[in-house]
Amino acid sequence: MKEIKIIDVKESIFDVNSKEAEELRRWLKEKNIFMINLMSSPGAGKTTLLKATIEKLKGRLNIGVMEADIDAQVDAEAIQSAGARSIQLHTGGMCHMDAGMTKQGLEAFDLEGLDLIILENVGNLVCPAEFDTGAHENVMLLSVPEGDDKPLKYPLIFQVSNLAVVTKIDTKSVFDFDEEAAAQRIRGRNPKAEVLFLSAKTGEGMDAWCEWLLKKTEEFRKG
Amino acid sequence: MKEIKIIDVKESIFDVNSKEAEELRRWLKEKNIFMINLMSSPGAGKTTLLKATIEKLKGRLNIGVMEADIDAQVDAEAIQSAGARSIQLHTGGMCHMDAGMTKQGLEAFDLEGLDLIILENVGNLVCPAEFDTGAHENVMLLSVPEGDDKPLKYPLIFQVSNLAVVTKIDTKSVFDFDEEAAAQRIRGRNPKAEVLFLSAKTGEGMDAWCEWLLKKTEEFRKG
Repeated sequence: MKEIKIIDVKESIFDVNSKEAEELRRWLKEKNIFMINLMSSPGAGKTTLLKATIEKLKGRLNIGVMEADIDAQVDAEAIQSAGARSIQLHTGGMCHMDAGMTKQGLEAFDLEGLDLIILENVGNLVCPAEFDTGAHENVMLLSVPEGDDKPLKYPLIFQVSNLAVVTKIDTKSVFDFDEEAAAQRIRGRNPKAEVLFLSAKTGEGMDAWCEWLLKKTEEFRKG
Repeated sequence: MKEIKIIDVKESIFDVNSKEAEELRRWLKEKNIFMINLMSSPGAGKTTLLKATIEKLKGRLNIGVMEADIDAQVDAEAIQSAGARSIQLHTGGMCHMDAGMTKQGLEAFDLEGLDLIILENVGNLVCPAEFDTGAHENVMLLSVPEGDDKPLKYPLIFQVSNLAVVTKIDTKSVFDFDEEAAAQRIRGRNPKAEVLFLSAKTGEGMDAWCEWLLKKTEEFRKG
């Protein structure tokens, strides 16, 4: 396996973050690279979903992944094994990524030929939602084992995400998860939010998710 | 159902937090009330475990619960239904509890006759670990669906907790969770850490957890 690149990223000052985020969006637009900020609780299945997505979209979408974690490089290794370019960002204990940190990651990334770059944020339902990373879209995952009440308790992350993906739906029978209640609570936080249900393990719902990625990337490149 | 008391708590300045935490520990010691700070990811099963614990220890340990969340009061309602005193703390968007916030909660709580008070911290594997709440013990939960790699990615919360409880072990067959690897990684972060495995749903492992609580509360009251 190719050695994983690990970048220690430093936090920006809060009030310059919005400006840096706008600059980063413009810079990516010039390069015609679409960026998604992927957020969720720890263990909601971000890396597993990305591995399955890379596999399904091979030859149709050239995806790069930046893995943000406090420590370790297991996720970047997993993505690289799935056949996509990836780097590991270490946040130095920080609970979230901001635009300046994301920029440091992008500068260290080989962006040549990429259509889409996905920032896998630190697993956390609170802090990442407060910081604009410079991504063009925020997507959040809610896993079935976490429960359908999470939109009630963690409002902001549902407000700032235009797509909420409910993951691990193959475990519905094991957990007491009400899909209709979850969708209703998500839309209560963001009436415009799309909600998708899938299992990266069984493949159920993966087509709709991949179609969403293809459509959004195409709209971005034409827009 | 009795109306739930909701307290909006305000954050302390960081450098006075340790001093406030020490004062709070002494104040609780004078009242002979043991306090545990319970931390985990969102949806790892804190409230479900507490409900089952209250049920099992009824008549043996008088437990009060402070539920910290950014929004909602579903957890405090669940605890009250289980027959224990509880209040809901709203953190005003904050990702963690600190000693000053905990004190505000305790001042609003009816502590009369309590043996043990459990602070259910905001669901978050990062920020709560950075702030001393004034509790006598930190306990963290890691749920099977989150995966056995979490001690690699979120070092601090495992370092500051002397007990890690692996929850939802009834779902082991559904998820690819290696108990031995998890325990080894937890002890890699804190060699003194005890590790328990349980399912609040099936009751497996609940006896050892309740024994731990009884033993620690007794040691505290004698100490």
